[in-house]
Amino acid sequence: MKNISLSPTGQEYILPTETENQEERKVLEQITEEQRKLGRKIVAVQGMGFVGCVMASVVADATDADGNPLYFVHGQQRASARSYWKVPTINTGVPPVKSSDPEVPEIFHRTVVEKKVFRSTWLNYAFEVADIVVVDIQLDATKPSFGHAEKGYCDLSAFRDGMRTLGKHIPPHCMVLVETTVPPGTCEKVVKPILEEEFQKRGIDTTKNPPLVAHSYERVMPGANYVKSIRDFWRVFSGTCEKSKELARDFLNSVLNTKEYPLTELENTNASELSKVMENSYRATNIALTLEWAKFAEKIGVDIFKVRDAIRKRKGTHDNLLRPSLGVGGYCLTKDPVLANWSMDAIFDLEGSLKMAIDSVNINDTMPLHTIELVKEKYPVLKDLKVALLGVSYLEGVGDTRHSPSETLVRVLNESWAIVKAHDPYVDFWSELENVPVLKDWQEALNEADVVIFAVGHKDYLDADPKEIVKMTGKKPLVIDCSNFLTDEKIAQYLKLGCEVKGVGKGHIDFLK
Amino acid sequence: MKNISLSPTGQEYILPTETENQEERKVLEQITEEQRKLGRKIVAVQGMGFVGCVMASVVADATDADGNPLYFVHGQQRASARSYWKVPTINTGVPPVKSSDPEVPEIFHRTVVEKKVFRSTWLNYAFEVADIVVVDIQLDATKPSFGHAEKGYCDLSAFRDGMRTLGKHIPPHCMVLVETTVPPGTCEKVVKPILEEEFQKRGIDTTKNPPLVAHSYERVMPGANYVKSIRDFWRVFSGTCEKSKELARDFLNSVLNTKEYPLTELENTNASELSKVMENSYRATNIALTLEWAKFAEKIGVDIFKVRDAIRKRKGTHDNLLRPSLGVGGYCLTKDPVLANWSMDAIFDLEGSLKMAIDSVNINDTMPLHTIELVKEKYPVLKDLKVALLGVSYLEGVGDTRHSPSETLVRVLNESWAIVKAHDPYVDFWSELENVPVLKDWQEALNEADVVIFAVGHKDYLDADPKEIVKMTGKKPLVIDCSNFLTDEKIAQYLKLGCEVKGVGKGHIDFLK
Repeated sequence: MKNISLSPTGQEYILPTETENQEERKVLEQITEEQRKLGRKIVAVQGMGFVGCVMASVVADATDADGNPLYFVHGQQRASARSYWKVPTINTGVPPVKSSDPEVPEIFHRTVVEKKVFRSTWLNYAFEVADIVVVDIQLDATKPSFGHAEKGYCDLSAFRDGMRTLGKHIPPHCMVLVETTVPPGTCEKVVKPILEEEFQKRGIDTTKNPPLVAHSYERVMPGANYVKSIRDFWRVFSGTCEKSKELARDFLNSVLNTKEYPLTELENTNASELSKVMENSYRATNIALTLEWAKFAEKIGVDIFKVRDAIRKRKGTHDNLLRPSLGVGGYCLTKDPVLANWSMDAIFDLEGSLKMAIDSVNINDTMPLHTIELVKEKYPVLKDLKVALLGVSYLEGVGDTRHSPSETLVRVLNESWAIVKAHDPYVDFWSELENVPVLKDWQEALNEADVVIFAVGHKDYLDADPKEIVKMTGKKPLVIDCSNFLTDEKIAQYLKLGCEVKGVGKGHIDFLK
Repeated sequence: MKNISLSPTGQEYILPTETENQEERKVLEQITEEQRKLGRKIVAVQGMGFVGCVMASVVADATDADGNPLYFVHGQQRASARSYWKVPTINTGVPPVKSSDPEVPEIFHRTVVEKKVFRSTWLNYAFEVADIVVVDIQLDATKPSFGHAEKGYCDLSAFRDGMRTLGKHIPPHCMVLVETTVPPGTCEKVVKPILEEEFQKRGIDTTKNPPLVAHSYERVMPGANYVKSIRDFWRVFSGTCEKSKELARDFLNSVLNTKEYPLTELENTNASELSKVMENSYRATNIALTLEWAKFAEKIGVDIFKVRDAIRKRKGTHDNLLRPSLGVGGYCLTKDPVLANWSMDAIFDLEGSLKMAIDSVNINDTMPLHTIELVKEKYPVLKDLKVALLGVSYLEGVGDTRHSPSETLVRVLNESWAIVKAHDPYVDFWSELENVPVLKDWQEALNEADVVIFAVGHKDYLDADPKEIVKMTGKKPLVIDCSNFLTDEKIAQYLKLGCEVKGVGKGHIDFLK
C-alpha cells in the first residue's frame, strides 16, 4: 500500500491527494498573509529528521525582547510513504522523534499548539514564501565494504535534488542555511552552482542576485539535553559571500543562546564544513587508539580503564581520553571521516587521503570483532552457542540503533550460527535488523545463555544483580563486560557464582583467585 | 683527554683518582652517621639528568610538619667524562641544567648550601647506605630508520647495568623506585629479576627479602614551572608487591604535594609503566592527526588554526586538540610509543603492534618534510638556496634541542645543498648538529636569505617586526610560518612588503590580494 505512511506507533496516514495539495496551498497562502502582517519572517526547515524537527521548534520558539515570536516556521517534509506521517504528527504538537529530554515534547506543544508558530507541511510552496531555508536533509556515507572505509563514498543525488527543489522555489533574497553535515566544499561547489542554475532558468540575474548560501553545523547530542545541545551550545558558521554571512549571523543570534555560547565565524564555508567533520574525526580517532592499548593491557594483566582514569587526571590535556568498548555507533563518528576523505578527490580533485581518520573508522567499525575474540577464547566454536546480548542501541540511555556496534556483533555471530537473543529497554524495534526481535523480558533473553554480553551501559544493566542474572540463565555463563560496565564488586560476585568474566581492556579477570 | 669532564660552561674537571674515591667514601660514611643521628632517611637518586637532579632537590626539600628535613639525598652520577662535571657543579649549589624556572636555582641553593641535605657523589657506596633509591637513568629508544618507528627498539643494556649496580649494593630493605620511563614490563621482568639475582649472589634469601621495586612516573614539563611539574602535579605509581606499594606511597606522600594532587595507585607496575607511555602516545597521536587536515586545509583555502579554535570551543571534549607545526620534538612523544610497541614482543613475547601510536611517530618524525614541500612549491631546486631558520629548540621559550624537528629540517635541506643559517636566542650550542652554528645575531642569520622559516614560537619571533626582518634579508624572501606564529596583521605586512607568505595548515596566503 504505497499511498499509506505508517508511523512508528502504528498509526496509518493516507498520502495527500491532489485536492488536499490544493487545499494545503491555500492554507499556506493564508498563513503567509497573517504572519507577514504580524511582522514575522518565514522560515522553512527542509527535512523533519532527527535534527531538523527540533531545530524547527527552536527557531519557532525564538522571540524578540518583548516575548513576541520572530518567525513562523514551516517544517517541510516530503509526502513519502516512509516519512509523511511526521507531518500530521507534528501538527498535533507531538514530536516525531523519541527522546529522553522532557523539553522535546514541551517545545513542540508550546510552538505548535500554544503559540501556533510551527507547522509541518509537505508542500514545496513553503520554500516560495520563505525568507530563510534551513537545510536538514539527511546525507549518508556509503561504506560498501566492511572494514574498508577508504572505499566509502557519499551519494549526493538526493541532496542535489533537494537543492534543485530550493532553486526552483525560493525567492532570490532567501538565505539558504545548510545545517546538514556535508563533505567539505559542498556549499561552494554543489549547493551554490545548483541554485545559480535554477535561478538562471527562472530568469533571475545571478550577478545581481547571487544565491545566499551559508553553512552552520549543529552539535546535537541525543539524550537528556537534546534541545539544549541545539540551542545552548557553541556554533560555527560561515557563508559563501558577505551578505550570506551577515544573514546567517543575524539569524543564529536571534534563535540560539549566543550570549552564553558566542558564535564562531569562519572565513568561508569550506572551513565551516571542514570544522564539523574534523571535530568528529578527532573524536573517532580518540576512540580508535584505545583499542590497541586495550588489547595490550588485556594480555599483561592490566585494567585499561584504571589506566585511563590515571591518565585523565591530567586536566586540560588528557582528560578527554575516550574508552574502548564493543565499538562505535551513531550517525556522526561512523560517517564524517568518510565524507571528508571522499571530498578530497570527489569534490576538490586532490591527491592524498585522510589516512588516520579512515584508519580510525576501520578500527572502530571492526571493534566488535574483538569482543567476539574474547568469546572465542572460551568457546572456539560459535555454532549453537547461546548468547544473551544486553543492549542494542549505540549509546547508554537512548534507543538509537543507527550504526550500532551491536548490529555488527549480531551479524557476525549469526554468520557463525550462534543463537543470539537481544535485549534493550530503550529499543522497541530494531529497524536495521528487522528479523532480530528486541526482547523486553530479561528472563526470555537470558534463559539458557552460555554467554552474557554487557554491550551498552544502560542503567538497568549497571544495576543488574549478578545473582539474578546467573539464575535466569540457569547456567554459569561466560560474562563479557564490553566497556567497564561492571564494578569490581559485581565482577567478584560473578566469579563467586562460578562464572568466568572477561572484559574488553581487562581480559580474563581472576582477581579473586 | 679522557680523564677530564668538560661542563657546558667550559669548566674542566679532572675525573677522581683512587685516592679521591677513598676520601669520598669516608665523607659518605661520616654523612651517614650524622644523618642517621638526626633521624633522617637516606635517599640516593641514580642519574643526575634532566629529571633526576631536580627530583633529588625536591626530595631533599621535603620536611616534616615542623619543617625538619626528612631525607638526606645523594645525587649519584657516574664519574664519566661526559657527566662527571655535574657532581662538583651540584655541590656548589648550582643546578646542572638550564631552565627558565627561577625555582630551579633556588631549590638547589637551599637544599645544597643552606640546608645541606643534598649532595652529589659519584660513588656507588651511596646505594649501600640508602633506604630508598630513585632511578632516573636515561633510557632511549633507537629508531634506526627515518620514518620507520616500527623498527625502533630499546637498548636496555646500560639500564640493566644500572640495576645490577643497585643489586650489588643496596641493603635488602631498600625500596627501588623506578622513575625512568621504561617499556611496560620492565620492573617485573627486568629490574626485579636482576635485583633478585644479585641479592642471591650476596647470600640474601629473596623469599624472605624479595627486592622492593616500585614504579612512579614523572610528568616533567620543561619551562617556567619545571619544579612545580615534579612536585605539584598528579602522580601515578605502583609496586611489585604490597610492601613496595606501601613504601612508594609513603615516600611520594612525604615529598610531593599530594594534598592538592592526590596519588593514583594502580594495581601493578605493568599498569603504571603502560600509563606513562600511553599518555604520551595519546598526545603524539593527537598531534599527528592534525597534519593530514592541515594539508587538506591548505589546498582548499582554509586556515586550519581558525578551524582548530572553532573546534576547541567544545570544552571538555575537544579543547585539547593540538596543532600542526614543523614537527614534534623533545624526549617523550618521540620515543615513548616506540618503547611501548617494542615491549609487546621483546618483553612480553606478544603478537600485534601499537599501530596507531607508531604511525603517529612516523607522521610526526617526518612532519618537517611538509615544510620543505612548501619551500619547494616556490623553489623546486634547493641547491644554494639561502634559508634562515628561526628556532632550533623543540619548544618555545626553552633551549632544549633534543629530537628537535629543526634538526630534521636542517639535515634534509643540507642533503639538498641548501645553505641554512640557524638562529635561536635560547640555544648556545646545538649538540645534535655540532657543525651547525646557532647564531645570536639576527643580521647574520637573515642576511641574503631567500627563505625565512619561523620554526619555533619563541617570543622574539612572535614580536619580530616584518619591516626589520625583510630589511635584514635585503631581499623579498619567502616567509614560512610553521605553526600560526604570525598574526594576520604581520602576514599582511609581509605581503605589502612584497614577500610571499606560506603557512603550514594555511598554504599560500594571499588574503590581501
